[in-house]
Amino acid sequence: MEHSFGSGQESHLPAKLSAYGKKILLTYGGGSIKKTGLYDKLMDLLKDFEIFELGGIAPNPKIESVNTGAAICKKEGIDVILAVGGGSTIDCSKAIAAAAYYDGDAWDLLLDMSKITKALPIAVVLTIAATGSEMDSVAVISNMRTNEKLPLYSPLILPKVSVLNPENTYTVPPFQTAAGSADIMSHVIENYFDREQAFVPDALNEGLLRAVIKYTPIALKQPSSYEARAQLMWASTLALNGLGSTGKTFAWSCHYIEHELSAFYDITHGAGLAVLTPKWMRHILSEDTVDKFCDYAVNVWGLERGNDKFTLANQGIDATEAFFKSIGLPSTLAEFGIDNTHFELMAKNAVKIGGLRNAYVPLSEKDVVTILQMSL
Amino acid sequence: MEHSFGSGQESHLPAKLSAYGKKILLTYGGGSIKKTGLYDKLMDLLKDFEIFELGGIAPNPKIESVNTGAAICKKEGIDVILAVGGGSTIDCSKAIAAAAYYDGDAWDLLLDMSKITKALPIAVVLTIAATGSEMDSVAVISNMRTNEKLPLYSPLILPKVSVLNPENTYTVPPFQTAAGSADIMSHVIENYFDREQAFVPDALNEGLLRAVIKYTPIALKQPSSYEARAQLMWASTLALNGLGSTGKTFAWSCHYIEHELSAFYDITHGAGLAVLTPKWMRHILSEDTVDKFCDYAVNVWGLERGNDKFTLANQGIDATEAFFKSIGLPSTLAEFGIDNTHFELMAKNAVKIGGLRNAYVPLSEKDVVTILQMSL
Repeated sequence: MEHSFGSGQESHLPAKLSAYGKKILLTYGGGSIKKTGLYDKLMDLLKDFEIFELGGIAPNPKIESVNTGAAICKKEGIDVILAVGGGSTIDCSKAIAAAAYYDGDAWDLLLDMSKITKALPIAVVLTIAATGSEMDSVAVISNMRTNEKLPLYSPLILPKVSVLNPENTYTVPPFQTAAGSADIMSHVIENYFDREQAFVPDALNEGLLRAVIKYTPIALKQPSSYEARAQLMWASTLALNGLGSTGKTFAWSCHYIEHELSAFYDITHGAGLAVLTPKWMRHILSEDTVDKFCDYAVNVWGLERGNDKFTLANQGIDATEAFFKSIGLPSTLAEFGIDNTHFELMAKNAVKIGGLRNAYVPLSEKDVVTILQMSL
Repeated sequence: MEHSFGSGQESHLPAKLSAYGKKILLTYGGGSIKKTGLYDKLMDLLKDFEIFELGGIAPNPKIESVNTGAAICKKEGIDVILAVGGGSTIDCSKAIAAAAYYDGDAWDLLLDMSKITKALPIAVVLTIAATGSEMDSVAVISNMRTNEKLPLYSPLILPKVSVLNPENTYTVPPFQTAAGSADIMSHVIENYFDREQAFVPDALNEGLLRAVIKYTPIALKQPSSYEARAQLMWASTLALNGLGSTGKTFAWSCHYIEHELSAFYDITHGAGLAVLTPKWMRHILSEDTVDKFCDYAVNVWGLERGNDKFTLANQGIDATEAFFKSIGLPSTLAEFGIDNTHFELMAKNAVKIGGLRNAYVPLSEKDVVTILQMSL
């Protein structure tokens, strides 16, 4: 892994990519990179390479895009994939990288990861601070036909090169900036609330949360604040690269519930997490978990330790909910037009796929339905 | 880099080492690994390898050991160096790894790093939480004949494999445990007090300092506390692997002054840092630096923000000094039997070698002499 952080770091791409070959599959999303000039800038930098393109990768990237990309890789003999975008583009590119060496429908790999034998190298130019996909070995792919959203894990799909230039996030609109921050916070919170205690990783987790809480409002007010965009970008990368989960069980909760919302309704991942997280917190607050929630209230939100632990714990949860609202994110599913139609099925899937019975506080299907009802 | 953290992780060594070959140079220090049983355990695990040994590597490792090790590597055709110990053994092994491919006195490499062209792979079994050498690309080597202690930098000497098993530090004596903690704290403090501000790295730095402050007294009282030893070990590794200096200038202060003390008097590095650091802090405290010292007092030592910034800043420095004393470290040079005989020469060397004119607060030879006088 070689990560270049800072203004102008794209200039290192030609040297780094040429180590892998001359044929690049350039992947991107809805085309914002053409409006911002980043596309032209990269094309100019990479004029000595042979570039093939896969644009239009959608949020909650779809298996169809993976199959399309893999077909290009096979046909053209692609040497390296250059993902220019955020988590959706990077995740799709990771799945393409593995599918390029698989004969058959790429969805097979999601259903059975042991079928991944090899992957093309992946380079990233990050354009939004959110998923941390630039420094992890996971891709989450959706199948809207079957209402499934599944994770793919493999050390083979860890990006080899990344360019983390905060200036490339200046143009991220307010809602996506806020949703990205909620995604970062959720990754950290999932790692933080874990059955295993780990002081050093949690000190990092608390610091990352304070960073997002401090800099998201600044980025919303001054979208071109290098300082704010840089801290958010670096927080997004560190939130999910393993540092915050070292020594922990890595048994998450909200993400699996949110994946069901996205699988059924294709909503913005971070926005769904902003709705679910405070409700999940209220649901699992108990005599067993209250001390951790007190640490969270004090070390993340700067609240004072008072006499009553549950009061303090609830103040920390209130602060979380108020923060998401203050940065313009929804606090109910109704705001997405989601009702209780699929709650039972979503709960069943979330418990099964996410192994929620092993979570920080084990969640049954009934628990998940309760959390979803609380979120209405 | 592959780092295995936790109890029993030595078991992965045979598979990881065999990727490099069959001939191992096993390096270690004064022989404590024979008393603790670690030596026998590793010999048993590695019985299918051909093992050559270089023991007796001293604290502040000497160039003579480097030359001896390099000669063994050349003569026997060593494939990989396995350093079992702390910073001294690891640093010596790193220099050996580079010197194995150099014809001539290894000291030449310290004087001119461009002569490093290649290095043997290095694996580490860490036995003390202190230097962070297990996850960085630096080796510090001493030449007692010339009273020089110089750093060697090269990405080629970054260890490829490490085993970080906190149980291997249970037998570290109290003074070495405390000196190791002072070394960790100094690395973090050097990164923290920097001309460049960086919220996320500093949140990590603050957390690492809180971890060392919390767990050192526990490790001293209960040497076999897995929890305490684990947090100290992980803090030592993260303190110097680049995470805390991202976006910063990496222009250090106290280390270069301490290197002179060690070069002239061969004292324990961490103990020397414990003496110097609070004095350096008092010397550089000014209107320009007081805000950073206030953050330090509040976020590291948990002090309350009051009315007067300088009072708070000094309380943070007092807390630092009192902490080092409380864990059994010296607070004056007199305790080492060091007087002012060589202060002028040491100051000259420190400014020259460490480039102290570019430090957080630039230090002249006169400043260094003042800090040394304050430390008497």
